Amino acid sequence: MATSAGTRVDLNADLGESYGRWTLGDDAALLSVVTSANVACGFHAGDPLTLQRTCAAAVAAGVTIGAQVGYPDLAGFGRRFLDMAPDDLTAAVLYQLGALDGLARVAGGRVAYLKPHGALYNATVDHEGQARAVVDAVAAYDPTLPVLGLPGSALLRLAGEAGLRGVGEHFLDRAYTDDGRLVDRRLPGALLHDPDEAAERAVAVAREGRLGSLCTHGDSPGAVAMARTVRAALAAAGIAVAPFVAPAGG
Amino acid sequence: MATSAGTRVDLNADLGESYGRWTLGDDAALLSVVTSANVACGFHAGDPLTLQRTCAAAVAAGVTIGAQVGYPDLAGFGRRFLDMAPDDLTAAVLYQLGALDGLARVAGGRVAYLKPHGALYNATVDHEGQARAVVDAVAAYDPTLPVLGLPGSALLRLAGEAGLRGVGEHFLDRAYTDDGRLVDRRLPGALLHDPDEAAERAVAVAREGRLGSLCTHGDSPGAVAMARTVRAALAAAGIAVAPFVAPAGG
Amino acid sequence: MATSAGTRVDLNADLGESYGRWTLGDDAALLSVVTSANVACGFHAGDPLTLQRTCAAAVAAGVTIGAQVGYPDLAGFGRRFLDMAPDDLTAAVLYQLGALDGLARVAGGRVAYLKPHGALYNATVDHEGQARAVVDAVAAYDPTLPVLGLPGSALLRLAGEAGLRGVGEHFLDRAYTDDGRLVDRRLPGALLHDPDEAAERAVAVAREGRLGSLCTHGDSPGAVAMARTVRAALAAAGIAVAPFVAPAGG
Amino acid sequence: MATSAGTRVDLNADLGESYGRWTLGDDAALLSVVTSANVACGFHAGDPLTLQRTCAAAVAAGVTIGAQVGYPDLAGFGRRFLDMAPDDLTAAVLYQLGALDGLARVAGGRVAYLKPHGALYNATVDHEGQARAVVDAVAAYDPTLPVLGLPGSALLRLAGEAGLRGVGEHFLDRAYTDDGRLVDRRLPGALLHDPDEAAERAVAVAREGRLGSLCTHGDSPGAVAMARTVRAALAAAGIAVAPFVAPAGG
Repeated sequence: MATSAGTRVDLNADLGESYGRWTLGDDAALLSVVTSANVACGFHAGDPLTLQRTCAAAVAAGVTIGAQVGYPDLAGFGRRFLDMAPDDLTAAVLYQLGALDGLARVAGGRVAYLKPHGALYNATVDHEGQARAVVDAVAAYDPTLPVLGLPGSALLRLAGEAGLRGVGEHFLDRAYTDDGRLVDRRLPGALLHDPDEAAERAVAVAREGRLGSLCTHGDSPGAVAMARTVRAALAAAGIAVAPFVAPAGG
Repeated sequence: MATSAGTRVDLNADLGESYGRWTLGDDAALLSVVTSANVACGFHAGDPLTLQRTCAAAVAAGVTIGAQVGYPDLAGFGRRFLDMAPDDLTAAVLYQLGALDGLARVAGGRVAYLKPHGALYNATVDHEGQARAVVDAVAAYDPTLPVLGLPGSALLRLAGEAGLRGVGEHFLDRAYTDDGRLVDRRLPGALLHDPDEAAERAVAVAREGRLGSLCTHGDSPGAVAMARTVRAALAAAGIAVAPFVAPAGG
Repeated sequence: MATSAGTRVDLNADLGESYGRWTLGDDAALLSVVTSANVACGFHAGDPLTLQRTCAAAVAAGVTIGAQVGYPDLAGFGRRFLDMAPDDLTAAVLYQLGALDGLARVAGGRVAYLKPHGALYNATVDHEGQARAVVDAVAAYDPTLPVLGLPGSALLRLAGEAGLRGVGEHFLDRAYTDDGRLVDRRLPGALLHDPDEAAERAVAVAREGRLGSLCTHGDSPGAVAMARTVRAALAAAGIAVAPFVAPAGG
Repeated sequence: MATSAGTRVDLNADLGESYGRWTLGDDAALLSVVTSANVACGFHAGDPLTLQRTCAAAVAAGVTIGAQVGYPDLAGFGRRFLDMAPDDLTAAVLYQLGALDGLARVAGGRVAYLKPHGALYNATVDHEGQARAVVDAVAAYDPTLPVLGLPGSALLRLAGEAGLRGVGEHFLDRAYTDDGRLVDRRLPGALLHDPDEAAERAVAVAREGRLGSLCTHGDSPGAVAMARTVRAALAAAGIAVAPFVAPAGG
């Protein structure tokens, strides 16, 4: 990151996770708080009209749009590992990237980064084949797109090796294992709910200055309240909240 | 079209219609005969890897890539009318356009035109709402993209009104009603199989010079043989076979 | 119906309409009010685990389970007409019937009637081919299963002709056209929200004694409140609320 | 098994694997050779009409129908591991069992056994959670249904512990590892193509008398020829080919 340590951090959340008749998350409220929107791409969530509207709302709010690519698994919301072959996965990521980018551009924006969703996020921490497949897709699509992921993951390492910009993030609503992995969300204590704790952690992480982004999940019940508390605490601590990549293309 | 009457015509076919384990059509053979490939976009056929490979093969063969958008209906192969609301349909077309365009660009090409598939093709002949929804998507995505469709259809009329280039086509393997509609493929006699008749018709239609393209279906058993016979007959008649839009972007 | 006019009526609602991560409707609350549950079957809504749990909850509540079959259209929630061929539709209805019946039987119940959902419900009012396809499926699966539908519909007429029991219903939360059709839900005024009006209408309809069931939609915001108000009004009017077919098989 | 060693063996193959416009396998030819048909259930392959027709053809041919349940993954043909939670998997198996059983019964037959497909087959060799989930579904649906699987698998062990009948099978067209697992079909040499070798192996395995069934894959190019050669060799060796469970219910 080009910014000086501790003075600036991005706040990201998952958006566009509704599907047809089913709505999920308060996207409008989140767009008033976050600086980067991880927008679903239709494989694990997000019908085309939802995605088009989410992109338009993000553009209107000045929020950077990222493609949150996932496994083709609506029933599992992309939260179950799927053993896709690398070439299938690369093609699936390209498909999702292009689809969302088209919708974003029609809305006056663009896809400005990529973040894997759910089980694909977790798989690409250690699964070299799938991590490389995702990196290959980004490198082929647009090598200037940053990749948002877990610090220490295979994904960010391989992204760096491929000449892509990797951006590390910290989850404010998730517990971590001692070795820096996310605790499986099916385990007790995996999900954190206290906005004040999250705000404290956010300020501490931002001050360390090693990470580019802080994440709250859009589909948690208290997501909006937590994001607001975090943002207020960052402001009070004199830390600027700004996206790690500009919303509009150069 | 800017070409003089009867001297030039495009030959198009549907490609990329395999899906995962299921293969359909002889895409490699067709790419050696046609000048424009209507490539499926994943909603009625075409998994991402199939589409990526089809785009790469089209680029290698110098064949122009078109986005053949369809209803989200794999089980029905997009051949059943689906009463989508216009805004849903516009978003679905944009999603498919962007997805295929991304895959085409990674392969060194681009989506150079749009053609609706199956029941969407038939619906947009008379259904103003759905025809306009498709036109709206193209106009928003890239107003320089031609739209390939049935002469006299609402689709081509509305495309023209929106400032898009409409290109009329003739189906070599389908019977027509007296008023220029396609005979429903469920009716007897709807599908034509004689390559020589198709070749005669192709030469006659090309000589009239009113239409920009001739179509054979990629998934018919004799598709390749028919396309070859037609192309040979056009050559023998001194009619150039060339795409109505160049494969590579300007 | 074997009951005397005006003394007894069924109260039905749509249940099991959640899908994976997406929840819809307050099934637990509705099961404490209604006597028949139209349970989705996975094609327009309802993942298998949701359906299994919905069946178990219905059995525990003593509520009769009906199979609410729909078009294979998750993105459209089954609310868009799909032009399925009759043999495809019959097979799709059989598939859904068997799937839900298996889950219901494992839960200690059974599928005790069939009701089409959304656009299939509307289509089978006038579309003879699709209405007959649904009737054919029920007749083949179990001719003792009643079919719940709109009075005067092709569905109920053809069900009667096939020797099936047709049960007419009145929607408490929907406006009707002069000729007894439902007003398209996309039109203003199509959806009714006043629980007291619904209760008045319920008592009036029940007193007429021509119809076997009253319906409220499970996914409306005020569905539970409306159902409770209606049930209380029926009780106050001395009208018994009871299912038109017993929950457990003979 | 109640039969004496080496005098009798079942011959099974996968059927009903077409999907809409896409056809796969020569089901009619296979039904003239095999004694048990593993019929897909719509999650990895098999649209409802295909399944209905496959069941009718199996009944007409006197072939026993088994439910070949798979992961919900059409794009991957069920050949990619999906990390489903046990309760989701049990419900998914129940859903598929009920759906196919309904179609089979309408055709005059019934689902007479269960066999997992593809990656679920492989997972249930060692994955206790998923193996138990499948067993739980069968035990809840109908504890008299045999389970067909790999000898030594967790699936057959847990089936036995649950009081279900487990039937071991040998794949005639697949290579095995030294510890009796199938070689991953993505590896070279995993698929065997020589009908004569298969026939030799079939006779040897049948003579050992430890296994109840021999399997050939329906979607291999030479599936029918291999099955015919195998059956002829078994006949020549005096080994009866008969299903391990009768086609019609008791």
